[in-house]
Amino acid sequence: MIRVNLKVVVLLLCAAVAAVTLSLWTRCGEAVLAGRGRDWEAGGKKLPNAQDAYGGSSDVQGYEEIDCHINGEYSVGCRKEGGEIYVPFSFLHKYFEVYGKLATYDGYERFEWSHSYSKVYYPKGKYDPRGVFMYFENYNVEVRERVKCVSATEGVPVSTQWESQGYYYPTQIAQFGLSHYSKNLTEPEPRRTVLEDAERDALVHWVVPAGATLTRMSDPHSGSHVLQFSSPDSATGGVSLKLDHVLDFVLGLSVRLGSNSSFTVVLQSREKRDQVFQLHYICSDLLISAQDQHVYHGVGHCGPAQPWRRLTRDLVVDLHKGMVYQNKPKRKLSRSKLKVIGITFRGSGQLDNLTLSTSEHLSQFYDAAVWLVRHQDASTGGWPNPVRRRVAPGMADLEPGWYSAMGQGHALSVLARAYHHSGGDASYLHSALAGLRPFDVASSAGGVLASFLGHVPWYEEYPTQPASFVLNGFIYALLGLYDLSTVAPPSAAQQAAQLFRQGMASLKQLLLLYDTGSGTTYDLRHLTLGTAPNLARWDYHATHVNQLLLLATIDHDPLLTATAERWIAYMSGKRAAHN
Amino acid sequence: MIRVNLKVVVLLLCAAVAAVTLSLWTRCGEAVLAGRGRDWEAGGKKLPNAQDAYGGSSDVQGYEEIDCHINGEYSVGCRKEGGEIYVPFSFLHKYFEVYGKLATYDGYERFEWSHSYSKVYYPKGKYDPRGVFMYFENYNVEVRERVKCVSATEGVPVSTQWESQGYYYPTQIAQFGLSHYSKNLTEPEPRRTVLEDAERDALVHWVVPAGATLTRMSDPHSGSHVLQFSSPDSATGGVSLKLDHVLDFVLGLSVRLGSNSSFTVVLQSREKRDQVFQLHYICSDLLISAQDQHVYHGVGHCGPAQPWRRLTRDLVVDLHKGMVYQNKPKRKLSRSKLKVIGITFRGSGQLDNLTLSTSEHLSQFYDAAVWLVRHQDASTGGWPNPVRRRVAPGMADLEPGWYSAMGQGHALSVLARAYHHSGGDASYLHSALAGLRPFDVASSAGGVLASFLGHVPWYEEYPTQPASFVLNGFIYALLGLYDLSTVAPPSAAQQAAQLFRQGMASLKQLLLLYDTGSGTTYDLRHLTLGTAPNLARWDYHATHVNQLLLLATIDHDPLLTATAERWIAYMSGKRAAHN
Repeated sequence: MIRVNLKVVVLLLCAAVAAVTLSLWTRCGEAVLAGRGRDWEAGGKKLPNAQDAYGGSSDVQGYEEIDCHINGEYSVGCRKEGGEIYVPFSFLHKYFEVYGKLATYDGYERFEWSHSYSKVYYPKGKYDPRGVFMYFENYNVEVRERVKCVSATEGVPVSTQWESQGYYYPTQIAQFGLSHYSKNLTEPEPRRTVLEDAERDALVHWVVPAGATLTRMSDPHSGSHVLQFSSPDSATGGVSLKLDHVLDFVLGLSVRLGSNSSFTVVLQSREKRDQVFQLHYICSDLLISAQDQHVYHGVGHCGPAQPWRRLTRDLVVDLHKGMVYQNKPKRKLSRSKLKVIGITFRGSGQLDNLTLSTSEHLSQFYDAAVWLVRHQDASTGGWPNPVRRRVAPGMADLEPGWYSAMGQGHALSVLARAYHHSGGDASYLHSALAGLRPFDVASSAGGVLASFLGHVPWYEEYPTQPASFVLNGFIYALLGLYDLSTVAPPSAAQQAAQLFRQGMASLKQLLLLYDTGSGTTYDLRHLTLGTAPNLARWDYHATHVNQLLLLATIDHDPLLTATAERWIAYMSGKRAAHN
Repeated sequence: MIRVNLKVVVLLLCAAVAAVTLSLWTRCGEAVLAGRGRDWEAGGKKLPNAQDAYGGSSDVQGYEEIDCHINGEYSVGCRKEGGEIYVPFSFLHKYFEVYGKLATYDGYERFEWSHSYSKVYYPKGKYDPRGVFMYFENYNVEVRERVKCVSATEGVPVSTQWESQGYYYPTQIAQFGLSHYSKNLTEPEPRRTVLEDAERDALVHWVVPAGATLTRMSDPHSGSHVLQFSSPDSATGGVSLKLDHVLDFVLGLSVRLGSNSSFTVVLQSREKRDQVFQLHYICSDLLISAQDQHVYHGVGHCGPAQPWRRLTRDLVVDLHKGMVYQNKPKRKLSRSKLKVIGITFRGSGQLDNLTLSTSEHLSQFYDAAVWLVRHQDASTGGWPNPVRRRVAPGMADLEPGWYSAMGQGHALSVLARAYHHSGGDASYLHSALAGLRPFDVASSAGGVLASFLGHVPWYEEYPTQPASFVLNGFIYALLGLYDLSTVAPPSAAQQAAQLFRQGMASLKQLLLLYDTGSGTTYDLRHLTLGTAPNLARWDYHATHVNQLLLLATIDHDPLLTATAERWIAYMSGKRAAHN
């Protein structure tokens, strides 16, 4: 047995209530050493008697230091007071991974002990595949750190999760789409200012420098008027619009750009007027680049043959990604601190319907849906993940191009909603139906179908060898299947319905495999690899709970509700009984 | 949120080191309320500053009461001192089921924190089926509370675990045999005093009252001399031997009793000479009865046709069971406090080789082995459990007569050792080989064979519908199969070897199903019933560990060792990682 000075790390929760931090503990997110060592020989000095808090005379007795000897392994400085031993929370935090913070309200201070840190979402009613997806209205996919940027070519996020260069990750793109679809249903109508629709008589705001032109013309394709601009290098500047617009930072415009053309949106800090940022949208395959106050997004290939495109850009997101690109994140540049002061078009092209809005969720949703239709492998129906991925030591790497049942399922959830919302656009339905194919192909053969003990079919978030049986990804796949089976016309819905039924049966058969009696495991790798269980951290555990609660609204098997309720209880420290 | 006065139960471990109990805590095994309530409004009164235990000036700061608010559910009185919160152990004991006690040694007092309470037995070498079984040399089956008595008819324990009347429980009988076999190998040679072997010329000690006779005669069966006694009701008393024997309390005698005959052993307290106990062994099917100082055990049917029998009686066990029978357990009557002062034979009969020994482990082992040979169902090879058993709500009751893979396996372990130790007595081998049959019969059809997901064979300790997959019973079954496959002649060993191999493969496939990341489950009922996992309490968890460590000496698959090591770590609070 070795005497060690216990150094423990105190993690403070950043929670909603007014938290007063202790002297040794500093701001949220910062870890502090709060351990204290004491010689074995120094034990048990008696401190002065303390007065009973009740004002009584005999209840509270002496207060002493005493060593707590932990499992015969190391020692922690405790306190002894009468018939009670007091154990320091800094030790408990580390030993049990419980959380705590001081909070003052109602006029007095208390210590708030939390067994877990995640949130349960109770469904408001029966799950509707035409409505909000899970609780994704709370998601903001594009602001995540692992999103490099929102591609200006595709209008969808680019992930750096498993490859720092950035790649299109179908699961993330679908979540982006689902979050915007859900926000569209839950948020109030956005403010939307039409800056230019080319239908007005006079173009009063535009500044057209010498050598440049701006012409209103009729467009045979759209049947409406559009603006045609030309600002060659020989001109003294681009065709520009001066603005003084606050609060609404989602730019929309329909555009056709000629070769080597671009447009630039200029933002300014409302507090420091010399802080000006230029967001350049350029004809390039570049995802994002930035230099000081200049941020560049590539809108892809330009030229006369290009069709009209509708671009939707969250300017604040674009600005932030540019700052992060330079490793200079500027958290203070929030929406309330900025304004749009101008937009400039250079080169040549046409534009129409230029808007600034609080949000354009539906446009962004459709950007995701269209991306999925366009980037599906026609021969397999899969949305390939273009990165190598090692799920766990002992498992073979997933080679670039693998499919994910979660990605497929999320795509079905997006496409089912797009099919519904668009009033029946067949391209979404056909893509979704094709997306079912990998569910019938073994994960060893390029699909997503695994089998538990050769017996129970399972849709793999990661089609690993050996199988990994990730729970949350499987349930997301089930939701996608349910969404499609509900929204598709009856004749087309059968395969999805059958896959959903099969998956629900598997879920019920294997669900309890994930139950540890005090939490859940993330997957079943321990069974296939013979290793320690991969316990789910509390946010994944909460996801399991939220998924079960949602499924319980469409399948009334009491197993789902009973399991969800037990798993909720685990989050406040309850455990299954032991014998 | 409700404010409750937390009432917590403090459980003190009865451990080996000198434990000094606190004022509010009393003796081991006794639960004490140590909770303390405080009004919300009274929070945060500052107590006088305490002097630093180092004698320094600035380290220890003020010491205050503060409420700990537990998961928003209830409140516990904590202490705040500088940058640290101190939480009462009485709460932690209840919340986390950790254990603690004060201990003083090396001149100072400390608080010993224990995550668990069980012991790991590290094997000393490769497991040998001819040697000690597991660590059963530490078992003392017959003193368990759930043993009603050791039958004087059969020489084996009678269980009251699931039926208070008492019944022969093959698993327990086998454990009785295995513990005595193991003790015989690990304990020193017993002292054995021959009181009478009928070979001496003069019978000096015997008291033969008027009307009674005692004759030395030659016995044609044994080829030795025996004593023939007769003490009819008309005699003034039984034929008796006065003794003054201490420390050795295991009586052995070979005997043939005539109808309505009996013998009585008289014990006396060494401290209180008026405390005299009479242990009567009577011709009756009675298991045990008792009235005040008189304890009765039935030796079964008597009469002229009866063959010679060898009886082995632990007199102290018999005395204690008689006291417990009257609900008057006398813990103070330990071996050191008693002596044997006489033995009396009444009625008629013959006796030989009367001994008093420290122990007679081999005799008791063979009592178990012979019982198993005699009470096996010849048509099925099973040892029936004659009680109804409900393993869990939701499972069909096991009807009387069910077989247990653990009982069958334990029986194999006994019979393999008896076959080996007896130098090849075929009756033990034949019984063991017949005992394999239920391993090939489905538990639904009266056997012990279940199947996990229709795929993985499993030997059921309890052949429930649906299956229960008890882990420790399965491994005990494996050990029995291994024992037989090792000890049996090669031609006879094959079926056991095949069943063992099959079982080991299943064990490796399903072992991790029992791993919760912080302990183990006792069975897999949660999967088959859809309920909470039935967590293994620490002694069962330790059994799992001990079994794996033993198996790892005969099967070098690193899965066994790695899993055992992780499960050992759980016993001191380590957990599997979360993601």
